[in-house]
Amino acid sequence: MSKPKPLVLHMNPVRFAQESWAKMNDIAEVIFIKEYSREQFIEDLHGKFNNVTAIGRGYLTKELVGLFDEELISQFPSSLKYIAHQGAGYDQVSVSALTAKNILLSHCPDIINNSTADTNLYLLLGAMRNFEAGRCHLYDGKWPAGGFGAGAKEGWSPKKKILGIIGMGGIGQAFRDRAVPLGFEKIVYYNRKRLSKGKEKECQYMSSLDELVKVADVISINCPLNKSTYHLINSSLIEKMKFGVIIVNTARGSVIDQDALVENLKTGKVGAAGLDVFENEPYVPKTLLDLPNVLALPHMGTHSIQTVYEMEQSVIDNIYKGIVSNTMITIVPEQRNSFS
Amino acid sequence: MSKPKPLVLHMNPVRFAQESWAKMNDIAEVIFIKEYSREQFIEDLHGKFNNVTAIGRGYLTKELVGLFDEELISQFPSSLKYIAHQGAGYDQVSVSALTAKNILLSHCPDIINNSTADTNLYLLLGAMRNFEAGRCHLYDGKWPAGGFGAGAKEGWSPKKKILGIIGMGGIGQAFRDRAVPLGFEKIVYYNRKRLSKGKEKECQYMSSLDELVKVADVISINCPLNKSTYHLINSSLIEKMKFGVIIVNTARGSVIDQDALVENLKTGKVGAAGLDVFENEPYVPKTLLDLPNVLALPHMGTHSIQTVYEMEQSVIDNIYKGIVSNTMITIVPEQRNSFS
Repeated sequence: MSKPKPLVLHMNPVRFAQESWAKMNDIAEVIFIKEYSREQFIEDLHGKFNNVTAIGRGYLTKELVGLFDEELISQFPSSLKYIAHQGAGYDQVSVSALTAKNILLSHCPDIINNSTADTNLYLLLGAMRNFEAGRCHLYDGKWPAGGFGAGAKEGWSPKKKILGIIGMGGIGQAFRDRAVPLGFEKIVYYNRKRLSKGKEKECQYMSSLDELVKVADVISINCPLNKSTYHLINSSLIEKMKFGVIIVNTARGSVIDQDALVENLKTGKVGAAGLDVFENEPYVPKTLLDLPNVLALPHMGTHSIQTVYEMEQSVIDNIYKGIVSNTMITIVPEQRNSFS
Repeated sequence: MSKPKPLVLHMNPVRFAQESWAKMNDIAEVIFIKEYSREQFIEDLHGKFNNVTAIGRGYLTKELVGLFDEELISQFPSSLKYIAHQGAGYDQVSVSALTAKNILLSHCPDIINNSTADTNLYLLLGAMRNFEAGRCHLYDGKWPAGGFGAGAKEGWSPKKKILGIIGMGGIGQAFRDRAVPLGFEKIVYYNRKRLSKGKEKECQYMSSLDELVKVADVISINCPLNKSTYHLINSSLIEKMKFGVIIVNTARGSVIDQDALVENLKTGKVGAAGLDVFENEPYVPKTLLDLPNVLALPHMGTHSIQTVYEMEQSVIDNIYKGIVSNTMITIVPEQRNSFS
């Protein structure tokens, strides 16, 4: 009797990489999880999935079974060796709990940089130039009666303005490259550690967040969400910002204290915001959406055909590598030194 | 008795450069025209304004007195020497009729390049990535029920796509510079004449429009409106384009046959459009606005505080130069060789 193929679970959905998953069948038994509850999952981890080798965390994993937190991870069988997360940010997963159980976690670090940076650029331009108010007025029939821009106030061009980027990893750098030709007077950034001269390019490093928000006319949030960045943008930091500052966020909603943002958008202290992410998404408060100085998207940073395909392919490639070579391709940074 | 100051008329409005106009009073008598009709204007050109030296064509000139066409220009008194148009495109003015009467025309060529290119970039990203559909769905409460992007279809990233730019003057080049970091596979362009190598940079020249539309996944219109570009984008040219092509227009509405565009947006032959300009603006047909694959703005290309200010200042500077030095600073190209 031949050895059974290793079992791979993949959490919904597969949007573009069906063919590649089909090829996985050569080396593994793949089960696609479409409807599920956390309770059922835990039960199955001790039952029919108690020999699972790898799990692919598709986009809807959190909706299906919730966070991969300590509680859930404690239920994982010892057969489980590889988890491939379909996303760059893996704040839904407790890395330390996985590491303690010798389970490798991969993510999709660079794949999403460009499409997220493009989204960031769109929101920056829209928020600076007041395009969404103009569009709204146009659709509300206020043109020509409203005058120029159908009555939307003239926005700002980048000329003589300072852009501040918080978080200068892959996305921050990809966004910086897109912002350079816009002609800001200066681009400054804050990052846990200063970039090398070669990577820093046209930007100027600010040694503290306070220093950055004091000079920036526009602030772009491109850092990951973790304990130290939760509510990084809160009332007291906003107070230190310029009046009318423009804030763009394509990172994670909880990097901003959303209630504080709403209050400051109402007073005009924050002049405008371009938001792709929200604190309790997919639930977005109407008080936020109804503000005339908000341009909001339903988390579309990676919502592009090429990017989704590449992320799905990355999950497949990482699991394949795990099964075939006992390692993964894009292991999360925290584990890169713990495992060989 | 001292010589009376030359008379300057300025057509409404002045939004940001009030102080600079105040200084013009030192050398001229300035009359600001706020409400007016073409009939009254013609009457006054033979009456109280029969000694006018210069006219500033503010944004609303067309709404106030209509086109500066042969008919109107034939009524201009011989005292009139300088017309300063507040805009880059001066299709509202008959240059040949002015030239025949020895009247100089200035425009604002480069001032508007960056803010128009920024608008073009916003519309390009929005149309490619289907952001407006996502925003719509979010506001219609279709998140989370609609799924990813609140149910908006995934759009395209620039990766492996070809961008075609029609018209490679100041705006086209400024836009090209902004498009380069997006990572298109290739940027091609068509222009009356090929640019020098230095100005061409990363672009590839196409010797005909047909050749460009055959390869381009995204087409950006950045040419002026004139007799040869009127309805340049018509049914027969669209037929030669790729299925699902994306079209962005921040130039002039009439460069596109708008009815043909609407028909082709309905069938999906044109996949999406980002439009800042329209054929009979400020009137935009509801059939166009209601299409789910249209992102539309009410002509906001130059609607930025810095750009409006600089354009208003340019009108002032050109008229000042006319009065003081008998020439203008940014004379339109057709007249640069006719006048010394």
